Amino acid sequence: MAEVASQELLLAAAFVSDAQYNRNIPFKTSPEAVRLYYLYNRWFMRTATYFFIFLNLSLAVFEEPAVYPLPFLATSLVEVLCLLVFFGRLMHFAKITHRNVFWKDTKNICIMVAILLSLTDLAIYGALRIYNIKSVRWSRIVRPIFLINFAESRQIRRAFRSIRNTLPEITYVFLLFMFSLLMFSLMALKLFGERNLQTAEGLPYFRDYLEIVFDLYVLVTTANSPDVMMSQLAIQNILQFIWKMALFCLFPRLSAQQVISLSSRMPAFDFSSWYALFFIAFVIVNTYIFMSLFLAVVYNNYKKHLKNEIRTLAYMKRRKMIEAFNLLKEEEGTQFVVREAMWKQLVKLVAPDISNSHRELLLRISDDEQKGFIDKKSFLQLADLLNIQVITLKIRSHPLGQWMPRVYRSAVSQFLRSVVRHRGFVWTYDVIILINAVFIALDEESPYISYAEWVFLALYIIEILLKVYTYEPRAFFGKNQFWNWFDTLIIFAALTATILNTTLKSTTKYNSQRILDIVFILRVLRLIRIVDSIQRFRVIMNTLINIVPTMLTFGGLTLVVYCIFAIIGMELFHGKIQFFPPNSNAPYALECGNPALKDSLFARGKYCKNNFNNFASSFIVLMELTVVNQWHVFANGFANVTAQPAKLYFIAFHIVMVIIIVNIFVSFILEAFFVEYSLEKSEVETAIEQKIQELGMGVQEEALQDEQLLDNMESPDNDLEGEGGTKAQPKGLVFKIASKRYRTVDALLQRMFEAEIPLEDEGPSFEEILNLSPATAVPGDLTSERAV
Amino acid sequence: MAEVASQELLLAAAFVSDAQYNRNIPFKTSPEAVRLYYLYNRWFMRTATYFFIFLNLSLAVFEEPAVYPLPFLATSLVEVLCLLVFFGRLMHFAKITHRNVFWKDTKNICIMVAILLSLTDLAIYGALRIYNIKSVRWSRIVRPIFLINFAESRQIRRAFRSIRNTLPEITYVFLLFMFSLLMFSLMALKLFGERNLQTAEGLPYFRDYLEIVFDLYVLVTTANSPDVMMSQLAIQNILQFIWKMALFCLFPRLSAQQVISLSSRMPAFDFSSWYALFFIAFVIVNTYIFMSLFLAVVYNNYKKHLKNEIRTLAYMKRRKMIEAFNLLKEEEGTQFVVREAMWKQLVKLVAPDISNSHRELLLRISDDEQKGFIDKKSFLQLADLLNIQVITLKIRSHPLGQWMPRVYRSAVSQFLRSVVRHRGFVWTYDVIILINAVFIALDEESPYISYAEWVFLALYIIEILLKVYTYEPRAFFGKNQFWNWFDTLIIFAALTATILNTTLKSTTKYNSQRILDIVFILRVLRLIRIVDSIQRFRVIMNTLINIVPTMLTFGGLTLVVYCIFAIIGMELFHGKIQFFPPNSNAPYALECGNPALKDSLFARGKYCKNNFNNFASSFIVLMELTVVNQWHVFANGFANVTAQPAKLYFIAFHIVMVIIIVNIFVSFILEAFFVEYSLEKSEVETAIEQKIQELGMGVQEEALQDEQLLDNMESPDNDLEGEGGTKAQPKGLVFKIASKRYRTVDALLQRMFEAEIPLEDEGPSFEEILNLSPATAVPGDLTSERAV
Repeated sequence: MAEVASQELLLAAAFVSDAQYNRNIPFKTSPEAVRLYYLYNRWFMRTATYFFIFLNLSLAVFEEPAVYPLPFLATSLVEVLCLLVFFGRLMHFAKITHRNVFWKDTKNICIMVAILLSLTDLAIYGALRIYNIKSVRWSRIVRPIFLINFAESRQIRRAFRSIRNTLPEITYVFLLFMFSLLMFSLMALKLFGERNLQTAEGLPYFRDYLEIVFDLYVLVTTANSPDVMMSQLAIQNILQFIWKMALFCLFPRLSAQQVISLSSRMPAFDFSSWYALFFIAFVIVNTYIFMSLFLAVVYNNYKKHLKNEIRTLAYMKRRKMIEAFNLLKEEEGTQFVVREAMWKQLVKLVAPDISNSHRELLLRISDDEQKGFIDKKSFLQLADLLNIQVITLKIRSHPLGQWMPRVYRSAVSQFLRSVVRHRGFVWTYDVIILINAVFIALDEESPYISYAEWVFLALYIIEILLKVYTYEPRAFFGKNQFWNWFDTLIIFAALTATILNTTLKSTTKYNSQRILDIVFILRVLRLIRIVDSIQRFRVIMNTLINIVPTMLTFGGLTLVVYCIFAIIGMELFHGKIQFFPPNSNAPYALECGNPALKDSLFARGKYCKNNFNNFASSFIVLMELTVVNQWHVFANGFANVTAQPAKLYFIAFHIVMVIIIVNIFVSFILEAFFVEYSLEKSEVETAIEQKIQELGMGVQEEALQDEQLLDNMESPDNDLEGEGGTKAQPKGLVFKIASKRYRTVDALLQRMFEAEIPLEDEGPSFEEILNLSPATAVPGDLTSERAV
Repeated sequence: MAEVASQELLLAAAFVSDAQYNRNIPFKTSPEAVRLYYLYNRWFMRTATYFFIFLNLSLAVFEEPAVYPLPFLATSLVEVLCLLVFFGRLMHFAKITHRNVFWKDTKNICIMVAILLSLTDLAIYGALRIYNIKSVRWSRIVRPIFLINFAESRQIRRAFRSIRNTLPEITYVFLLFMFSLLMFSLMALKLFGERNLQTAEGLPYFRDYLEIVFDLYVLVTTANSPDVMMSQLAIQNILQFIWKMALFCLFPRLSAQQVISLSSRMPAFDFSSWYALFFIAFVIVNTYIFMSLFLAVVYNNYKKHLKNEIRTLAYMKRRKMIEAFNLLKEEEGTQFVVREAMWKQLVKLVAPDISNSHRELLLRISDDEQKGFIDKKSFLQLADLLNIQVITLKIRSHPLGQWMPRVYRSAVSQFLRSVVRHRGFVWTYDVIILINAVFIALDEESPYISYAEWVFLALYIIEILLKVYTYEPRAFFGKNQFWNWFDTLIIFAALTATILNTTLKSTTKYNSQRILDIVFILRVLRLIRIVDSIQRFRVIMNTLINIVPTMLTFGGLTLVVYCIFAIIGMELFHGKIQFFPPNSNAPYALECGNPALKDSLFARGKYCKNNFNNFASSFIVLMELTVVNQWHVFANGFANVTAQPAKLYFIAFHIVMVIIIVNIFVSFILEAFFVEYSLEKSEVETAIEQKIQELGMGVQEEALQDEQLLDNMESPDNDLEGEGGTKAQPKGLVFKIASKRYRTVDALLQRMFEAEIPLEDEGPSFEEILNLSPATAVPGDLTSERAV
């Protein structure tokens, strides 16, 4: 069931009530416009847009410098096609929104400008190409704009807004950090500059001010840590220094003259001891304190702006629901209400795929006293109500029970089923999986182990058969039974692959062991399930599961940054570094084809494969730079083959990727974890559950509490039959609220915030909502504050 | 003025009231015991204790394996001396506490056991030594216990408690993390194990399961990042793989047979493309997500337990103040009060060094209506009241104004003084310092630059003279005028050094440029002041300043961990790796004297100096391990020369130091930053300020608000003379509350918490306070929740 947005509810309400132009609804409400609106939001339209966005981005693979070279005509035609699609999508959007709303939105203008720029650049480049003049395809940097600005990727836009909002604050910390770096560099210059220091490789270092700044910046990232620090560090000297200082303190009568003569008489007492103190101070101040401060600032801002975004969303939703109510309301006594017929029409329109019984349940909840109309308070909750995943369980008896009831209900069968239902059954199989994991790790050359694999396969198949025997098959393979599907698929894939492999081996000697390996690895993944069943790991697992959807956002963010840096990197460094196979005879093969790299760490580390010669290599290099280690080797390597300022490119990437984006990612995980700790049931959910219980259509509450039993409880035929504890079951149905586990952090936060807005509060108007600043007071606490 | 603890107030109250044994006061209150109590807390007793603790710890430098070898007799005598001192200290403590309190405290028992263990070990070792039997001095690991358990280092104990409390939670995350690591390792074994992979250095890798686990663990710390990941990564293959997958999706009709033949026909399409996906997944899950989760768990626990500690402290203080009140109270009408005489006696006892006028001010605040007694509510605030640093400013006219009033008050002099007072004056000198910094960075061989140094020196001297001329000299060099002292000292040091250097140069040709360098570097430090004067950098600077005291705690914590690991490390790896000077002829000089290191990264990186041959070297190695980079090289190196399980030592250090302690440090900085954002004036402070203003003894509020003007306002003679805006100034005094900037995070938090306890609330009893759990509800919000 797709998520029902308050947006759609409002639109549907406008459609149902046949309202004319209303300046509070940004979308047109004529029947044709609504049809276009639904078309605009269809999954295939969205998918197509994404496809063309990624096609446009991936053009970099085929354009000069190409991984797979294609003629210029081909790539430019594809690009024009993409741009046309984007233009069409934009026009479609223009058709369904009011003109003033459309032109006020910077997104739309951004896209239009980007399309124009791309076309202009393409035309200029094409024209120059005819006359054989080489020019730069600068508009390629513009391409990620489409990914950011198309309405579907709201999450990415929010992440970008979050970055933009954090920038001013982080700039101050960064300036202070740079100030500290420059000051330490100045000290380093004075302390070590004239002492002819050499690295372990015999290269001079700490000579030039800018060199020092760069070396110390790298030290902040710890990437060059022992090498730059330890090259000349005389351990004994620190102790000698401390020793002498102690002496000096104990005998303060020594004159300055004596101290000078003392220090000149002992040549070992150089200022080398300063090294250690200097580097320790530097690492503490810059690596530990400043890097933590960056995280603190980013996290603080992230939280503040997340709160603001969530608040805006919550108020927006409330406002839209009020508008929808106003469109549908009719007078009833002293109050305005929505009639049942109208309500049904609305729900059918926005959620065509929910069952009649489910709709009846919702109506019973909204219209508690069955008065035939819904009051404002209940109506405002409609969007939430529709979005609560209520699972309709059809109670059916087991097909075997119908075909041969005697056998199925015999004592042996009853016992077997109770064994399978017992927790010990699950645990036994957990142990078997663990043993299997050990066997996988063992050397598989021995024949016993390959026999053991057959035993394990047989055991797993028996497990599945037993479960299908015990539970109703349709319930076992239900929509929400992810783990059952997972197990079954893996087992049958393994079975097929093993049989296939054995046949192939005996007939053609072709060994597809690799296929089997992968199947076994998937099998090992089942171990996750064991972990998940241990209560104490729950919060952690929940956090991990909940962050998966937002991970995609960060993936998009990273993609955008990588694309931009890759395109710039290719312009700057293309062809400067070549990779030659180990036994190549090309000149300077060991120096990556560039004599400037002779004796450099880059060439010695055999990093020649890491270059900017095409889009794919650039991505790999950027990935390595993200992981930070050895990034100075790359920076120095590329600076050697071009010019020293080239290091700025690497520093810029480090700042953008590691200092900003990785910290935002960490903030996001911190927040997700804290929110997870404060997870509560929402009011609306509680209301629904109460109603379900009242109507006697619920599964027992005890079972619901213990979510790990869900799979066992999914078709509670036996329990219901046995006890009959629940009251009348009108249509052989039970309802159950789907697990609250698989939700994004955003959804959880929004729910928490909504619980804070009293139902009577109509919230600010549309205009006010859009101008909310993070400083505005928030009703009550939000986010992690609840966590403790 | 020393901090007045509620503890001391309670004791003083007991002393004043001549109370007998009271089970609510843990200390004895007989006059002799109180004298002993004060002696126990004297600064020299504390300093002596610390001295012997560090002496005891530093014995490791002189014991086998020694940096400076001393005979066993000498070190053992010093150790016995230290132990005697500790025992004496403990006995002293026993004298002033009640017996049952003393024996209930685990600290004391810990110390006694540690002393006994040390003595036993010393005796056994000495006895065995006589018969020339080598044994292990295992009790040396016990030594850090003295640092942790002596009452003075409460902060370190709290940090250890914080670690202990975090352990269970972090264990769960760690288990999950290990599970993920083991699973990924299993996959790696299956995917890459049989492909004969080689590193860039031609060494085999990814063969053995435990090797893989270790390599991947190192990858989590990113220390071996590009090397382990990129050794065999075929960039093209990823794209080929994606390309073929796309083809496969587009033409789903291809049979399995065709796919197999397709993949067998293209030898380049190996599973190498799995590499990239595998490593990307690994880095995202383990490096980014799990490492953030560690931080999240540590931070969450840190916050929770910090809150609990602060709450306990706050309640404890309240309870002690109530007990003190109960001891001193007398009936007055319907309520109990403390008489003025009693109050004065008490304050004189606990704070003997505050001036009469200051005490009068406090009395006026406590006894608002001058009734001759202090009620309970005011009495409870006494500890806070005494701890607010009120600066007594004596208003004196400038000595020059007294000696030659005509000249000093002339128009030129007035103008000059107003120029100096102008903000532009400060800015001008800020610019001069910046220019000076540039000159320092420039090459100083040129004669112009050394002349310029003289010009700058002259300018700085003029600045100081002008300031002394404008402000009253005694105010200029007042107690809180840190920056003035700093400037003056640096300038005169620079002046002396420059003159000395020039004389030495012209007479003996001895160049002490280095001394000058350091002076100039200190001069560069003045730049910090410029930064501090920019409003936007304030919060950041405040955080940085406030964390300095707690940094010492973390220093102690690190010292303890380092000591323990250094002692274990010396036992394990002593003498296995030798350092030889570059031109040595010793066998295996290039392999650090150990043939097992031939061709290892350790020997090639010239890390031979990093060994565990003595205490100092061990510390250096541990420092490098803390910074993480290249730690696997160390681990592999030491594992090669001893045994493979030696790696466990390095992994254990990584877990303790990087995963736990560094994360606690980061949590601490995060929290400090958030608290700084929510800084508010406390109620008591506001009361005092009001009183000061009421009594007309205050500096204008506007001046107070703008703290950066403090130095200019320090002796506001002119303003007061000119305006006479304030009322009668009884004793030529003004009071001012000292800057709120320089406070620890703890103090800020405690203040925030106390503001939450209503004055009527007596809080729980002593027993209840000590048993408070973090889960107990807290009145109101605390810590960073206010920050947003």
